[in-house]
Amino acid sequence: MQKEEIAEKFKELQNRITKAIATTDGKASFIEDLWERDGGGGGRSRIIKEGNIIEKGGVQFSAVHGSLPEKIKLKLKLNNDPFFATGVSLIMHPENPHVPIIHMNVRYFELEDGTFWFGGGIDLTPIYINKQEAKEFHLQLKEVCDRHHPNYYPKFKAWADEYFFLPFRNETRGVGGIFFDHLNGTDGLSKKETFAFVMDLGNLFAPLYCKIMRDNSKQSYSVQEKDWQLHRRGRYVEFNLVLDKGTKFGLDTNGRTESILVSMPPEVKWTYQYEIEANSKEEQTLNLLKKGINWIA
Amino acid sequence: MQKEEIAEKFKELQNRITKAIATTDGKASFIEDLWERDGGGGGRSRIIKEGNIIEKGGVQFSAVHGSLPEKIKLKLKLNNDPFFATGVSLIMHPENPHVPIIHMNVRYFELEDGTFWFGGGIDLTPIYINKQEAKEFHLQLKEVCDRHHPNYYPKFKAWADEYFFLPFRNETRGVGGIFFDHLNGTDGLSKKETFAFVMDLGNLFAPLYCKIMRDNSKQSYSVQEKDWQLHRRGRYVEFNLVLDKGTKFGLDTNGRTESILVSMPPEVKWTYQYEIEANSKEEQTLNLLKKGINWIA
Repeated sequence: MQKEEIAEKFKELQNRITKAIATTDGKASFIEDLWERDGGGGGRSRIIKEGNIIEKGGVQFSAVHGSLPEKIKLKLKLNNDPFFATGVSLIMHPENPHVPIIHMNVRYFELEDGTFWFGGGIDLTPIYINKQEAKEFHLQLKEVCDRHHPNYYPKFKAWADEYFFLPFRNETRGVGGIFFDHLNGTDGLSKKETFAFVMDLGNLFAPLYCKIMRDNSKQSYSVQEKDWQLHRRGRYVEFNLVLDKGTKFGLDTNGRTESILVSMPPEVKWTYQYEIEANSKEEQTLNLLKKGINWIA
Repeated sequence: MQKEEIAEKFKELQNRITKAIATTDGKASFIEDLWERDGGGGGRSRIIKEGNIIEKGGVQFSAVHGSLPEKIKLKLKLNNDPFFATGVSLIMHPENPHVPIIHMNVRYFELEDGTFWFGGGIDLTPIYINKQEAKEFHLQLKEVCDRHHPNYYPKFKAWADEYFFLPFRNETRGVGGIFFDHLNGTDGLSKKETFAFVMDLGNLFAPLYCKIMRDNSKQSYSVQEKDWQLHRRGRYVEFNLVLDKGTKFGLDTNGRTESILVSMPPEVKWTYQYEIEANSKEEQTLNLLKKGINWIA
């Protein structure tokens, strides 16, 4: 498994995903920006906006290399080795509050001395939580995980609960999903097998999310539901700018800001102490933004 | 100068400021929330919304104490001493894009062993930069600084340029102002004299900003100007959530999230590669979002 091969497969994955989303959306197509990074490498940003279903979304491929900033080296406890990193990262912000926000990321990192690891994850952020939908989402993730390693789903599901959590709000970002990092072939899977898992996850995205897009975008919504969505998007901004490690890494390593921050929703609201009614659908959703829920049960 | 006296003066400052803003706004009044902090102390949040001029704003007083989280102690290189911190912090988001966003903060920190320091700052974020307005703003800050120490204005003006800067956007937040930290009586001013400077700055806020509110809110604005404002507010969010030390400190020390994040604008937009026309007013403003501009010249 050479790094070039991994990057190439990620690029093909980006192709498949953008094609599927554009077809399902039916109106908007992706615009593409190629960019180069000062210091080495570059990427291919694909952006969709003002679609039938997707109000704003980005599917980013990048393959960058060079030397790491001191700050990052200290954090990762690495020496001076040049690094190589490639990945596909996406976030979709649908217009209709009944279609959940989604995020997916697969990535590979290596150093010249042979050290490598894979990371990634996928998580769903419904504006209104539908338990059946969350169950199906988790079942599909579990199925992919189980095909590769019996421990992956329980471990990575718990990891997502920890990762996609806003401590200062005491809320999870949504219904979670899976998150993993530093998979380096020491858990029984070879490098090749680990990559196969990562690609299977990447390939799950399009069928999984396109079905949700099709099913949920048919539902009409009220002014109140739209307003709740704009406020929930505020939490998404808070997570990405305060807590998300990928965003931080990108901004700290002189990444392409417009590509990194395409994750920001198109329109957002913040209201001081936004009030929701007792026993409302909004309250039901808030009550489910907790770690440790077994959605499959 | 006992800490109780400092906190009391800060509280009175909050009173004067909220009274002046509410009077100038003419429509909205402040709502007040008293809150207590797990671990010690509390605060008084005052929030204004949907006014004639101020769409959303907060003036926060707090006086908190307790032990510091490990993370903060490591960062500040402090030992185990219980801390005390009090301050007034405010941000105003006007509805009209011709009225600049403003931020002001004065704060005092002490440890049981007698270590103390003052910090603070004030900076102006116009949506459209008016050089004459920026000049008057800086002249007033300079006058307050010069009254107390000949080095304060040049030093703190440069500090604000460094502090209110978004490296990943290569833009300053606005036209700057002054920023200072760790004033601990070693620059020739006693503790009492330092506090007098801090209070003078705090007292400058209301007359300075209320004049801008009155003058600028008379101007009408276009759809395009409003849209530019919503996008510039996005930069404000990015600064506060990614870079602002006060926000980070608050969120890390189990502060009151709703009070800390009242700094978030009421409504925000993000567009991938937002386009502006050559030689437009928007471009003129972008060209002035630079460090090191001598606004007074």
